Amino acid sequence: MLIIAGMGVHDVKDMSIKAFESAKTADRVYVEFYTSIPNSKLEDIEKTLGRRVYLLNRSDLEENSEKIIKEAKIKDIVILVPGDPMVATTHSTLKLEAKKLGVDVRVIHSSSISSAVCVTGLQFYRFGKTATVSYPYSGIISKYPVDVVKQNWKINAHTLLLLDLHPKPMRIPEAIDYLFKAGMEDWYAVALGDVGGSNYMKCDMLSKLRDFNPPGLHSLIVLARTLHIVEYECLIEFASAPKEIKEIVV
Amino acid sequence: MLIIAGMGVHDVKDMSIKAFESAKTADRVYVEFYTSIPNSKLEDIEKTLGRRVYLLNRSDLEENSEKIIKEAKIKDIVILVPGDPMVATTHSTLKLEAKKLGVDVRVIHSSSISSAVCVTGLQFYRFGKTATVSYPYSGIISKYPVDVVKQNWKINAHTLLLLDLHPKPMRIPEAIDYLFKAGMEDWYAVALGDVGGSNYMKCDMLSKLRDFNPPGLHSLIVLARTLHIVEYECLIEFASAPKEIKEIVV
Repeated sequence: MLIIAGMGVHDVKDMSIKAFESAKTADRVYVEFYTSIPNSKLEDIEKTLGRRVYLLNRSDLEENSEKIIKEAKIKDIVILVPGDPMVATTHSTLKLEAKKLGVDVRVIHSSSISSAVCVTGLQFYRFGKTATVSYPYSGIISKYPVDVVKQNWKINAHTLLLLDLHPKPMRIPEAIDYLFKAGMEDWYAVALGDVGGSNYMKCDMLSKLRDFNPPGLHSLIVLARTLHIVEYECLIEFASAPKEIKEIVV
Repeated sequence: MLIIAGMGVHDVKDMSIKAFESAKTADRVYVEFYTSIPNSKLEDIEKTLGRRVYLLNRSDLEENSEKIIKEAKIKDIVILVPGDPMVATTHSTLKLEAKKLGVDVRVIHSSSISSAVCVTGLQFYRFGKTATVSYPYSGIISKYPVDVVKQNWKINAHTLLLLDLHPKPMRIPEAIDYLFKAGMEDWYAVALGDVGGSNYMKCDMLSKLRDFNPPGLHSLIVLARTLHIVEYECLIEFASAPKEIKEIVV
């Protein structure tokens, strides 16, 4: 059986008891740091589990995935992945390939940035589509995240923007530059660092968040056109929001 | 300190190692089954933690929350909650109240239905706003979830619909009736039961999902106007989707 187990939003101790128990008893345990980068090194994960853990790279999970699926036909294989496994399309495709090759798959869920961002006080049911801010490709800056923000504004929804990880984790100042170059207008946003760990948060206009560069992985939330009063109070209390943001409370 | 710790999407073993360790060493541990209903009874939770756990009701978390916050001023108090804590506005408000009263709050994240639904193969970044199908209030059926589906259709997004839990967990057949009575048009949807456990899933037109009534808590996903090819393949493999759904693949 192939068991795809989430390690959760921050570090190895965000994995569930289920994931821990499955990894303890599996025939072999792999881990990948490609779809996100946890705050635990391979050695920390091995220490927590008390066993050897093997590192997979992108190609092991994508074009060469058949090898690991075939291994899971005769053994219990656990693949530990950052966050909640099915949020990454890589793992969803792996699950599909395994099913097609007649291999049973079990998914063990875990915490994900996608709901953990509600630690800001922004309400989950007010978030629209999520998008990723990518590095320029052949010198061209993608307009996709800006299009998604504009789509979400049409329905008055917040937008979670994840930042590209490869070749290295993008920082907030750089992401904001790419957004403006892609035609983004200046608007209120929350800049986040180390979600699930130290939870650094700062709310302000995008143009004023360019100096925010805390430790940990970064992400951004572009706010909807309006705020609920409880969201407003949380942003004041937890994210040092400027008082003028009251103008968008309805 | 007040520690609000998620128990995860399904049962007590979906809680993280962090949540487990905090609950083991806290001065007192509470649990609430109001914002969702886990697949573990109070006794199971007590057995897993090896200690006494006290049940909170809605009013303990809302109008009478000051009592528990004051307790957390002098003791380490863990409140175990279903899913990922901050997804429920109740817990977000509790965190805000604690901050105002000068009590430190720590949030321990866990898996949530909000990302676990990607076990269907539907891609996270294609989901729009989430809504709840509520029981009629004073005989009036809310149009809110139908409005949200229509908003999401404008941006070609899927809609996760959670079902009301009080006075008893709403079932899919009943939810579909309310949706049609609120003006919903017939469209492709995925009906879900026991997400994170047995993962019952069936994809079809809403009108054809009225007989789907598996064990566990229920939810619904109304599909976007189009499907990605991998989403289509997953719905065929995992949710017994009808072949005609191919017409919406782009």
